Formats: sequence, C-alpha cells, structure tokens
Amino acid sequence: MNSASGDANGAVCFLSVAGVRRLVGAIGLPKVMHGLVDAIEVDFRRWEEFNKVPRVTQATGEGFIELMPVSDQHSYGFKYVHCHPGNALRRDQTVTGFGALARIDSGHTYLLAEMTLLTALRTAATSVMAAKYLAPEGARTMAIIGSGAQCEFQALAFHYVLGITTVRLYDVDPLATAKAVQNLSSTGLHVVACATAQDAVAGAEIITTCTASVGNGRVLTDNMVGAGVHINAIGGDCEGKTELQADILRRSDVFVEYPPQTRIEGEIQQLDPEHPVTELWKVVAGHAAGRVSSQQTTVFDSVGFAIEDFSALRYVHDLAVDAGLSEWIDILANPDDPKNLFGLLLCMPECDRPGNDGVN
Amino acid sequence: MNSASGDANGAVCFLSVAGVRRLVGAIGLPKVMHGLVDAIEVDFRRWEEFNKVPRVTQATGEGFIELMPVSDQHSYGFKYVHCHPGNALRRDQTVTGFGALARIDSGHTYLLAEMTLLTALRTAATSVMAAKYLAPEGARTMAIIGSGAQCEFQALAFHYVLGITTVRLYDVDPLATAKAVQNLSSTGLHVVACATAQDAVAGAEIITTCTASVGNGRVLTDNMVGAGVHINAIGGDCEGKTELQADILRRSDVFVEYPPQTRIEGEIQQLDPEHPVTELWKVVAGHAAGRVSSQQTTVFDSVGFAIEDFSALRYVHDLAVDAGLSEWIDILANPDDPKNLFGLLLCMPECDRPGNDGVN
Repeated sequence: MNSASGDANGAVCFLSVAGVRRLVGAIGLPKVMHGLVDAIEVDFRRWEEFNKVPRVTQATGEGFIELMPVSDQHSYGFKYVHCHPGNALRRDQTVTGFGALARIDSGHTYLLAEMTLLTALRTAATSVMAAKYLAPEGARTMAIIGSGAQCEFQALAFHYVLGITTVRLYDVDPLATAKAVQNLSSTGLHVVACATAQDAVAGAEIITTCTASVGNGRVLTDNMVGAGVHINAIGGDCEGKTELQADILRRSDVFVEYPPQTRIEGEIQQLDPEHPVTELWKVVAGHAAGRVSSQQTTVFDSVGFAIEDFSALRYVHDLAVDAGLSEWIDILANPDDPKNLFGLLLCMPECDRPGNDGVN
Repeated sequence: MNSASGDANGAVCFLSVAGVRRLVGAIGLPKVMHGLVDAIEVDFRRWEEFNKVPRVTQATGEGFIELMPVSDQHSYGFKYVHCHPGNALRRDQTVTGFGALARIDSGHTYLLAEMTLLTALRTAATSVMAAKYLAPEGARTMAIIGSGAQCEFQALAFHYVLGITTVRLYDVDPLATAKAVQNLSSTGLHVVACATAQDAVAGAEIITTCTASVGNGRVLTDNMVGAGVHINAIGGDCEGKTELQADILRRSDVFVEYPPQTRIEGEIQQLDPEHPVTELWKVVAGHAAGRVSSQQTTVFDSVGFAIEDFSALRYVHDLAVDAGLSEWIDILANPDDPKNLFGLLLCMPECDRPGNDGVN
C-alpha cells in the first residue's frame, strides 16, 4: 500500500472522469470490483483505527450537499457529494461528487478524483462485501428493484465477486430497465426484465432496492419477501426516503454502517430509535455474527459511509500509480522556499514550470 | 455576477496554481486586490444571508486539517485547508488548500480552484477591508512583523488599496526579511528592513503581525503599541498560538469575524470568554461603529472565515471566465441519460469526448 506516497514538488495525482473510465477499461471491471471489495473489507476490519468525523450536511431545498471526511494514521480523505432528485427531470445526474486524499503528516493533498463513478462503484462493492457475510450460501439469483444509475454496478459486482448468475430487473420506467438489459447484454449474466416488483423478487435469494422512490416503504412490501432472503436497501438514504415496509425490518436482522447516521437516514428511521441493529464492521472483524441460519431474513440498511469512499480513493490511487495511468494536477502551490509564496506571482508559470501546468 | 452559471455538459471551471498566477499576471495585482476587497466587503455586508456551517477541524498531531463550508442562496462553497507548522522545517508550505463552488439548485460543482495563493490573497484583502473601517485616517506607514508567506501580500494589498507608502519589516529570520525586501523592490513601496520588532513599529499607524510564532503573546508587547494604532493580528489562528500580549487587547476595541470561532482560535482566547468584541460584518453593514477617535487602539483579531474564501472563489471564477482565462476540468460525470451512468464504462473516453479530457 503506497497511499501516502505524495509528491515533493507539489504535483497531485488526478483521476478525471475520463481517467477513471480509462483505468477501469485497462484493468477490467471484474478485477476492479474484486479489488474494491477487498479494500473496503480491509478498512471495515480496522474500523476502530479511523477517526470518524461527522459528515456535514446542508439541506438545499431541492436536495442536500455533504462533506464526508475520515482519516486513519496516514491519510485524511473527504468527499464532496450531493443528492438532488429533481436533477433527473432536467436529465442531469442526481448524485455527483469528487474527493481527495491528503497526508496526515504534512496536510498536503496527494490525490484528487472524480467520485460520481467511484461512488457508484464503491456502493456496489460495499453491497457485495456485506453480502459475503449475510447472503444465503450459494445464492445465484438476485432481484434488483430500480434500474437507474446504480443498477448495472450492483448486477456486475454481484456477478463477478459473489457468483450471481441471474438478475431479475424491475423499474417503474420500462425504458430504464431496457437500458440496463442492453448494458448487461454481453456480460455473461442471465438478465430478466420483469413487469412487476413482485415478479422480479420471485426466486431471488438476494434483493437489492436501488430506487429514487420518495416517501416511505413503498418499494418492497412485507408479503413480497420470503424467509431466508438477504436484502440490500440502497436507495433510502435521507430523512423521509425509505424503500422497505417497516414490517420487513421487524422480522429481519438489520446490519448498518454507522448507527448514528443510519438511524436518521436509513430504513430504520421507520423503527424505534432503540431497535437493535448490528454494525457491519463487527461482523467483518469477527466480533459479531452475520447470517446464522438459512431461514433468517437479513437486511443491509446501507446509506453510505465515509470509510467506503476512503477505501475507494486509496484503492484507485494505488491502482492508477501502479499501472502508470495517473494524471497529475497542478493544484498544490509548493515553492522551493515556503516563505516565498509571493515569488510565484513575480514570474509567469512558463518561466519555471514548463509542462507542469493543469493536468498532464 | 455570473457565479452560478455552471455548465450543462459537465465541464467545471478550473484554476490551477499556474492558472491563478496567469490570471493575476494578466489582470494585474492592483486590480485583483481591489476586486477582492470589494467582493469580501459585499459579502460581509450581506453576512446574514449566508448559511454558516461550522468548520470541521481535525487535529493531526503535527497540525490540523479543516473543511470550511458556507453557502448563500445560489452557491455552496468550501475550502480544504491545513496548517502544519513543522512543514517549514522540511521546506514545505505550511498552509495549502483548494476549494470549490457548486450550484445550490443542482449540487453540481462549477469551480475547482487551488487555494494556497488564493488564501494568501484573500487574507490580505480581508485585512485591508477591516482597515478601511478601523485604521486611523490618512495612515501611510505600516509595520509588518513576520516576513513569511503572508508578508508581501499584506504590504501590497495595503499599498494598492489603502494608500500605504512605507512598510517597516521585521522577522526573527533576517533572510526572510531580505526575501520580502527583494520581492517588494520595484513596487513603489518604501520598504525598511528593521533589526527589531520595536524598531519596526516605530511611527507605524498600522501594525500587522503575521508570524509563525508559537506560544502566547510574544510578538507584540504592551509597551510597543502606542494609542491610536490599528493592529491586524493574522498569525494567531489556533489554540495556544497568539501574538499579542493580552494587555494590548484589554485597552483596545477588538473586532472579529465570527465570535464562536475567534474565542477558540484567535487572540481573544487569552481573555475572559465574555470579553466584549464587535463583529466586523456589523461595522461593514453600518450596524456598529468602527473607529470613532484618533486615540482609540483597534485590533482586527483575524482567524479567517469561510465567507472570505467564498468571496475569493466567486470573484476569481467571474474574473477568469470574463477574461477567457479559465481552464476546464473533467471532474463531473454527467452522461446524456442520467440513468445510464454505467454506459460511461462501456466505451472509452476517446469514443465520445475527444478533447474533453482532464484539463483544457
């Protein structure tokens, strides 16, 4: 792990949107997904080493904007992210973001990265990591309710890492499902477009809900969920936005990332604030049980946590540097004499830093 | 003001270190300083319109790392910044940073900018803005204690905007003062290198302290400060780091940015938590008096506040766009169909976005 390598001359590693696309193209999505799941698992196992600063949320009327910081002994990471459901009506991305890593010892930034794609990748990888501990053994069929931006990432993460062979898709918008079917057409997955959510969950051992549904508990109703199923609840991630009918939660074992955050933003906002939940990191670290019987219904009530972004950032940083695919960005002023910052304004960039301009 | 213009196709305006240098070179530092002072003054006048989120600070052992968010009705801004005094020993910049602006209505980022140079510029501009209301009328001579990274920015901001003609410099490191004298040599300022701080303040109507001095109150002692002087206290900006002997504060009128923050980080951490202070924005907005007599000693106890960064970001954004000097950075994934985010991974960047890669 060379996450904190940094750079003495002030150049910062940069992963643009195109850079992430090229990186995934060069390494291959299966390997990237495996690597991401491993990175997140390593960091969940050492959960207690992290300095978990509360995220800073600002409601904006049409959505919310957040800064999500976290740090370990070597690095400080944060993500800027927002969720504006109304963007979809303007054909704009509802969730976008970017993030950075900095050295704890110097404070100097050493990675800047787009995090719209990375958030989609890490969300799917986190779901798989949870399912490794919670899904029924030998699960091969998965239902995905919601064919939006997260759908294919979920399908392929579960295919590549957990061995899912069939995905059954449903969305209120048939065009969205058609898009997902098309995108997944030559991946080796057996993809079934379903006419109803009820139809989609038939025979599925794992159900992922990743909708933009507003309101509470309208995506999965109690009668749709048989015993022994594992549910990834992804789409409910803010106050007043949940996907699972509360009765499902009451008869399930519920696993969460960070209880203080999930009680506000997750599915369990529908339950008593004292309702027992298990922190997923404790399962990963061997301090708590995951799935213990084939008849148990399990729910991973996922709202996203800063450590997952940190894992993703350090993983793609190392991957890009090792593969020689990192770009460099001129965002850190570090003159030879730190007291002579003003000197940078006395001559033009061309005179001392040829080629070290913008992104290379 | 076109701060929230954004860009439909996902390109984000970028100001690299070289970009800020080029922008200042093209526009000229005098005009940039005037513009920055005006921008900060406009935003201080509408202080109550801002959503002032607490900054998120993390102590790192050798320093601290902060995220400083703030927003108005149109834009959300934040800065990543750190202060690691030990960096100077490794000939690394002690304070570096970068920041961003995003649209409130969509959450989409529309500016990413280096903020090492910008922080130095806005700190000097904020000092001048305060001095417009607090310094004695007709002041022409200024002492600057500390010849580090902030020194020349202070000297020239006061020269260009407030009409200061003479600066008297002192630093415990004579080489630092020699560097500042050299940098200021052809600016029209009369620059005097002094052997002691006592010597430097002789005859000065304005005193700026911008040292990296650790400990409390060692830079300016009570006997050094005559009646009628205005003091900008810049260097003291965290717990246990102040520059002014407390007696100076007790016989002065003290002006601050944001009391909850300044009581912890500023010079007034040495005083009773109830000691009366005036919020600078109230002076700018006409709700409170600034300087009322020639014998009054005034202190601007400056620790830096997120609104100043917001002002700087929106000012340089508009300046760069208007001058055609903005770069563009590929950090916001925004596919034509927002539900088809995954589609970005199905083809390589070259196939759909020629030339829109990294920074242009």
